[in-house]
Amino acid sequence: MRPSGRGLDELRPVSIKTGALAHAEGSCWISCGRTQIICSASIESRVPPFRRGSGLGWITAEYAMLPRATSTRNRRDGRSGFVSGRTQEIQRLIGRSLRAAVDLAALGERQIIVDCDVINADGGTRCAAITGGWVALRIAIGRLLSCREISRNPLLGHVAAVSCGSYAGQTILDLDYAEDSEAETDANFVLNCKGKLIEVQCSAEGEPFSPEVLGEFLRLARKGVEEQIAIQKSAVG
Amino acid sequence: MRPSGRGLDELRPVSIKTGALAHAEGSCWISCGRTQIICSASIESRVPPFRRGSGLGWITAEYAMLPRATSTRNRRDGRSGFVSGRTQEIQRLIGRSLRAAVDLAALGERQIIVDCDVINADGGTRCAAITGGWVALRIAIGRLLSCREISRNPLLGHVAAVSCGSYAGQTILDLDYAEDSEAETDANFVLNCKGKLIEVQCSAEGEPFSPEVLGEFLRLARKGVEEQIAIQKSAVG
Amino acid sequence: MRPSGRGLDELRPVSIKTGALAHAEGSCWISCGRTQIICSASIESRVPPFRRGSGLGWITAEYAMLPRATSTRNRRDGRSGFVSGRTQEIQRLIGRSLRAAVDLAALGERQIIVDCDVINADGGTRCAAITGGWVALRIAIGRLLSCREISRNPLLGHVAAVSCGSYAGQTILDLDYAEDSEAETDANFVLNCKGKLIEVQCSAEGEPFSPEVLGEFLRLARKGVEEQIAIQKSAVG
Amino acid sequence: MRPSGRGLDELRPVSIKTGALAHAEGSCWISCGRTQIICSASIESRVPPFRRGSGLGWITAEYAMLPRATSTRNRRDGRSGFVSGRTQEIQRLIGRSLRAAVDLAALGERQIIVDCDVINADGGTRCAAITGGWVALRIAIGRLLSCREISRNPLLGHVAAVSCGSYAGQTILDLDYAEDSEAETDANFVLNCKGKLIEVQCSAEGEPFSPEVLGEFLRLARKGVEEQIAIQKSAVG
Amino acid sequence: MRPSGRGLDELRPVSIKTGALAHAEGSCWISCGRTQIICSASIESRVPPFRRGSGLGWITAEYAMLPRATSTRNRRDGRSGFVSGRTQEIQRLIGRSLRAAVDLAALGERQIIVDCDVINADGGTRCAAITGGWVALRIAIGRLLSCREISRNPLLGHVAAVSCGSYAGQTILDLDYAEDSEAETDANFVLNCKGKLIEVQCSAEGEPFSPEVLGEFLRLARKGVEEQIAIQKSAVG
Amino acid sequence: MRPSGRGLDELRPVSIKTGALAHAEGSCWISCGRTQIICSASIESRVPPFRRGSGLGWITAEYAMLPRATSTRNRRDGRSGFVSGRTQEIQRLIGRSLRAAVDLAALGERQIIVDCDVINADGGTRCAAITGGWVALRIAIGRLLSCREISRNPLLGHVAAVSCGSYAGQTILDLDYAEDSEAETDANFVLNCKGKLIEVQCSAEGEPFSPEVLGEFLRLARKGVEEQIAIQKSAVG
Repeated sequence: MRPSGRGLDELRPVSIKTGALAHAEGSCWISCGRTQIICSASIESRVPPFRRGSGLGWITAEYAMLPRATSTRNRRDGRSGFVSGRTQEIQRLIGRSLRAAVDLAALGERQIIVDCDVINADGGTRCAAITGGWVALRIAIGRLLSCREISRNPLLGHVAAVSCGSYAGQTILDLDYAEDSEAETDANFVLNCKGKLIEVQCSAEGEPFSPEVLGEFLRLARKGVEEQIAIQKSAVG
Repeated sequence: MRPSGRGLDELRPVSIKTGALAHAEGSCWISCGRTQIICSASIESRVPPFRRGSGLGWITAEYAMLPRATSTRNRRDGRSGFVSGRTQEIQRLIGRSLRAAVDLAALGERQIIVDCDVINADGGTRCAAITGGWVALRIAIGRLLSCREISRNPLLGHVAAVSCGSYAGQTILDLDYAEDSEAETDANFVLNCKGKLIEVQCSAEGEPFSPEVLGEFLRLARKGVEEQIAIQKSAVG
Repeated sequence: MRPSGRGLDELRPVSIKTGALAHAEGSCWISCGRTQIICSASIESRVPPFRRGSGLGWITAEYAMLPRATSTRNRRDGRSGFVSGRTQEIQRLIGRSLRAAVDLAALGERQIIVDCDVINADGGTRCAAITGGWVALRIAIGRLLSCREISRNPLLGHVAAVSCGSYAGQTILDLDYAEDSEAETDANFVLNCKGKLIEVQCSAEGEPFSPEVLGEFLRLARKGVEEQIAIQKSAVG
Repeated sequence: MRPSGRGLDELRPVSIKTGALAHAEGSCWISCGRTQIICSASIESRVPPFRRGSGLGWITAEYAMLPRATSTRNRRDGRSGFVSGRTQEIQRLIGRSLRAAVDLAALGERQIIVDCDVINADGGTRCAAITGGWVALRIAIGRLLSCREISRNPLLGHVAAVSCGSYAGQTILDLDYAEDSEAETDANFVLNCKGKLIEVQCSAEGEPFSPEVLGEFLRLARKGVEEQIAIQKSAVG
Repeated sequence: MRPSGRGLDELRPVSIKTGALAHAEGSCWISCGRTQIICSASIESRVPPFRRGSGLGWITAEYAMLPRATSTRNRRDGRSGFVSGRTQEIQRLIGRSLRAAVDLAALGERQIIVDCDVINADGGTRCAAITGGWVALRIAIGRLLSCREISRNPLLGHVAAVSCGSYAGQTILDLDYAEDSEAETDANFVLNCKGKLIEVQCSAEGEPFSPEVLGEFLRLARKGVEEQIAIQKSAVG
Repeated sequence: MRPSGRGLDELRPVSIKTGALAHAEGSCWISCGRTQIICSASIESRVPPFRRGSGLGWITAEYAMLPRATSTRNRRDGRSGFVSGRTQEIQRLIGRSLRAAVDLAALGERQIIVDCDVINADGGTRCAAITGGWVALRIAIGRLLSCREISRNPLLGHVAAVSCGSYAGQTILDLDYAEDSEAETDANFVLNCKGKLIEVQCSAEGEPFSPEVLGEFLRLARKGVEEQIAIQKSAVG
C-alpha cells in the first residue's frame, strides 16, 4: 500500500559512515533511503555573547540543501539576502534536540556547531539531520575527552528522530517524499534512548486529527527511534 | 503553588474586543491576562505567485512585538536586515493554524493577511495570536459574505490555541512569563471546536518528558481551548 | 468648509493616557482625532559609540506603523531589508525635537529610546508622535529623578508639534488624512512652551507658496502647540 | 566675523560648468566655494510602478558623496546594506524640489533621474545639489524639446536653494563647514524665480529660535537664491 | 622537494564519478587528491532577462564550500547578507570558462546552471570545479540531445583547468593547500582540448615574476589539462 | 583600422593631475582618453582585524562608477543591497596590485584605502584605476615620510596597468569601449618598473587564443606600462 512497498511501521534502510569530512572534529554521512546528509561538528572556543562568562557551553546547528538536492533546483538559502522560515525552523529544531543530549556545564565554555548539508533529499531530512548530527557531535566530544580538554563526559545519551504521518487513511513511519507530499498529517518526534520525548511537532496538512492518532504516531516513533539508535551504536561503537 | 495563584488547569482571564483598527476588514484586541495583542485581517485581491490561476485562496500571518512589549527593549524585527527565527516560526504556526479553519476553494482567489502585533507580552503570545487572529479572520470573512463577494461561507469552524507546560513538577495550563521562564517543558496546542488537533508543538527545555505527560498536556489543552472558543463566540456572536 | 466641520484654527480632540505599556519606564497612548499612537520611553545604560566616555546622554526615536494603520495594508518597514526614506525622515525629526527638550549633560551617559508606534493613522502622525513622545520621555525622566539616579532635572520644558497646510485656498491647522491628501502645502512645526521654534518643515505639494503663507502657518502653529502643551500638563501634572 | 571673512549676507563664489559627463542627457559641475558636485540628469522611458499608465512623468534624485569628500573617510552609503537616513532625507528633498520645477503632464510618461555626486564637501551640499540639479534637468529637457520628443516645455521656471543659519549670534547666508559645525540653527530654503517658497527646513541645533529669526532667514534666502538664479541663467542662457 | 613528494609537473590523482545527485540533469563527484567537489548541471527553460527573446542560451555557475570543508569553519557565504568577493570571482570564472565550451545558439533559449559545492578543500578548488563542471554540463547536454529537445550538439569540445605556481623557487603544477599557502605566485589556466587558452589568471603573492616564469607556467598547464581531459573522456566516454 | 585611428601599440593620451580632492592624504585625477577617474588614498590608523597586532600594514581598494559614467545609467552598486561581482573583482585586483608596490612591514600597522571613482567610462577603467591609484598612494606615503610618521620608505617602486586585446584579428594595446565591446580576447596586465609581472588576467570572449597571442599581449603590455610609468614620474616627480 505504500509506494515503496514498505510495511506501515518500517524504516527505510539507514546507514551512517563516519569521517565524511577531512577537517571536522566529528562528521558522518547518513543515508535514510535516498535521503543523504553530511553532518559535521565543529568545536570553537568562542561562545555566543549570551554565554560569555557563564561557564556553560552551547550547541547550535545549521541546515542547508545543495541547490539540486531536490527535483527542481532551489536558490541557495541566504544568497537572496535572507534565510527561509523553513530553514530557520529546522535548524532551531536540530539545535534544541542536540542540546538536550548534552550537559552544557560539563562541556564548559565552548561551542559546537553542527552543520547538516543535504546532498540528496527524499523526505525526512530534518530527522536524518538530528540522528546524524548526534553522531558527529558524539565523535567531536570523544575527541575533547581523549585530548583531556574536558574531564567529564558531557554526553547524556543517544538522541534520534523520525517522522510519522497519516497517509491514505493509515498511520505510517518514516515518510519518503512521495508519501510526504500527499500526507494528511506530518509529525516529527525526537526521543532519547530511554524512550522519553524531547520534541514533538505535528501539523494537520488536511483534516485535523484525533488524539488517538497522536497516540499511534507516538508508538511508531518509539519503534523507529529505537532502531535508529541501534544503528548509531554500530557506527560509533 | 502557581505564582499567580491560579489552579493548575485555570486559564488567565481572556477578553476579546472587536474593531480595534479603524481600517482593517476585521480586527480585535485580545487580552489573556497581561498579554495584549492587536489582531487584524486584511483582504487582498492579489494572491502569492504559487496560487495564481488556481482558483484557491490563501491565508498568511505576520507576527511582531512592539519593541517595549517586554521587560527590556528588543530591536524591531527586520530592521537589522533579517527577521528572527523565533518570529518566523511563530508566524508560520499562526498561518498554518488559520488556514486549517478555512476552505480555501470557497474563499476564492484572494488572500487574507492576519497581522498579530503584541502590545504587551506576558507569555502565551503565539496562542493568543491564534485565538485572536481567528476572530479577526471571522469578521473579515463575514464582510465578504455580507457584501456578496463570496456566496458560500469558507469558514470551517472555530480554531483556538493554548499553552501547557511542566512547572515545578506539575502539568499546568496557560503559562504566564514567570512560569514559562522556569518551565521544564513548553507545549502549544491548536485545536478546533470538535476537539480535533491542528498543531502540536512540545519542547523539553530541561529533562525529556514521558508519553504520559504528553497525554496530560492534551487533556489540559482541550479544556483550555473549549473555554477560549466560548469567549470567541461571545465576541463574534 | 473643512470635511470635518472644524474651524480653520481648530485642533482635533487630543487625549493622552499614560501607562499604555506595562514594562516601559515611560509610556502613553495619544489620540489626535482618529490618529492613535503608543509612545514609550526606554532607558538604557549603553549610549551609542559616538557618545561613549563623553559624559553626555542621548535621546533617539523610532517610528513605525502597524501594517493596517492605514486604509490599505502596508508592508512592515524593515522586513523587505530596508527602512523607507519617509520613516527615517520622521524618526530623525522626532529624535531632534525631543533632544531639544533635554539637557544631555544633566541626563548623564545614558540613552533614552522613544518608540512611536502608530495604531491608527488619520494624518498628523509625526506631530502626535512628538507630543506623545515628550510625555513618555517626561515620565521616564521623572522615574530617574525619583530613584535618584540623576540629581538634576534634565528636562528643559515642554515640546509639542502640529501640522498646518493650505487647503482649498485657506490656511488650516492640524490636517486630517482627507485634508492632507489634497493640501497644496504641508507644514510641520515643533515648538517649546515659550513659543520658540525647534523645527520647521514646509513643502509645497502643488504651487510654491508666498512668505505671507509661512507667516500665517506660524501663527496657527503657535496656537495649536499652546493647546497641546495644556493637554500634556493635565496628563503629567 | 565669519571665518571666511564674508559679509553676513554674502554667498561664496558660485560657478556652474555644463557638460561634466560625456554620456548624460544633461550635466554640470557646480562649485559653491570649496563644495563641488557633479549633477547629471538621465532620461528613462520607464517610469516607477505608481506612474505607469498615468500619462504623467516623474523626477527623482539620488545623492552620494565620494568617500573622501570629507576630512575623514566615510563608508560608501549602501555598501553596508542600507542607505543612511541623512542621505535619504537629502535625496527626497532634492527630488521634491525639482519636481516643483516641472509640469509632469507636459513631460509625459518618462522619468528623469538627477544624480548629485559630491566630489568635495565644505557645507551646503544639499543646496548646491538642488541649484546644480536644476541646470542638469534644464539641459536634459532642452534635448527632449530639440529632438521633438515632447512638444510643450514642461519646465515651469528656475529653482535654486541656499542655506542660512545662526552663527555667533548673527544670522548668516550660505554656511561653509566651519560655520555649519558651530551653528545654533541650520536652515535650508528652496525658492523659485518669483521668490515663492518650495521647501523650508529649519532645525535648532542648540537653543530654539524665535519667529523673528525665521523671518530674517527668509530675507537672506531670497537674496541668495536670486543671485544663484542669475548664475544658472549665465550657465544655460 | 614538494611536501607531497610529487614531481614538479605531476598532478594529484584525479577521479570523476558521474551521477552524484539523484535529481540533476548532469552531475559528478570530482576528487583531485583530497579536494572533493560535487558538480551538477540543472537545465532551466527560463533564461536571464538579458537573453529573453534572443534565441541564445546561457550557462552560469555557482560555487560554495561546506562550512567545514576547511581546517577552520567558515560562515556560509550569503548568510551574513552578502556573497564574498572571492566566491563571486570564482563563480564568474567557472561561468565564463564553461560558456566557452558551448555554442549558445545551438543550445537555444534555455539556461544551464552549474553548481559546484566543495565538500573537502585542499587547494585547487576552482580548477577542479571547472573540470568537473564540464562533465556535469556534458551529461546534461547529452540528455537534451537524446530527448531530441535540441537537434545539433552545442558542445564545442573539452574544457579543463589546472593551477600552477612558484614554490620554493620552482615552478610546479597543481598546488595543494600546503603549497598554495606558501606560493610566491598563484596561477590558474583554463584550456580546451586543442591546447588553446580560455582564461589565464596569475597573481604575484610575493615578488613580481618574469615573463619567462609565465611561459613555464603555460607549459605545465598544457600538460596538466591534457591529462585531465583524458580522465574526463574515461568518465563520459 | 582602429576606430580611433590609433596605431596597434599606441596608448590613448594619459594625463594625471594631483590634488583632485581637498581632504585626502593623496589624490589625483587620471584621464586615459575619455576615461576619467578620481583616485584618492586615505590613511587610517585602524587596520582590519586579521592584521591587528601584527606590526604589518594593509592596502585595500574600492572601485565605483558614477551612475551616469556610462551610456545608459547604472544603479549605484551596493544600493540594491549587494556589490556586483564585477566591482568586487576589480577592487580586489586593484588592492592586490597596489599591495605589491609596498613593503607592508615598513608601512607599519596602518591602513591605506585607495578609492577609485570613475567619472566617465570609455574602456580600461580598472587599468587606469591602478595607474592613478599608485599615484595617490605615492603622495599619501610621501606625507607619512615628510611628517616622520614612518622612517623608512615602504614604496617598492612604480606599478601601472594596461589592457590588451584581440580586435579584428590584430593584437592591440589599450582598448577603448568601442574596441572592448567587440574584442575576441580581453587582457589586463599589471607590471612594475622593472618589467616584472604582478597580475595577468586574460579571458577569451569568443574563440580561445593561442599561447603566441599571450606572448604578443605581453610585449604590448610592457611597452604600454613603460609609457605610463613615465607619466607617473612627471606627475609626482
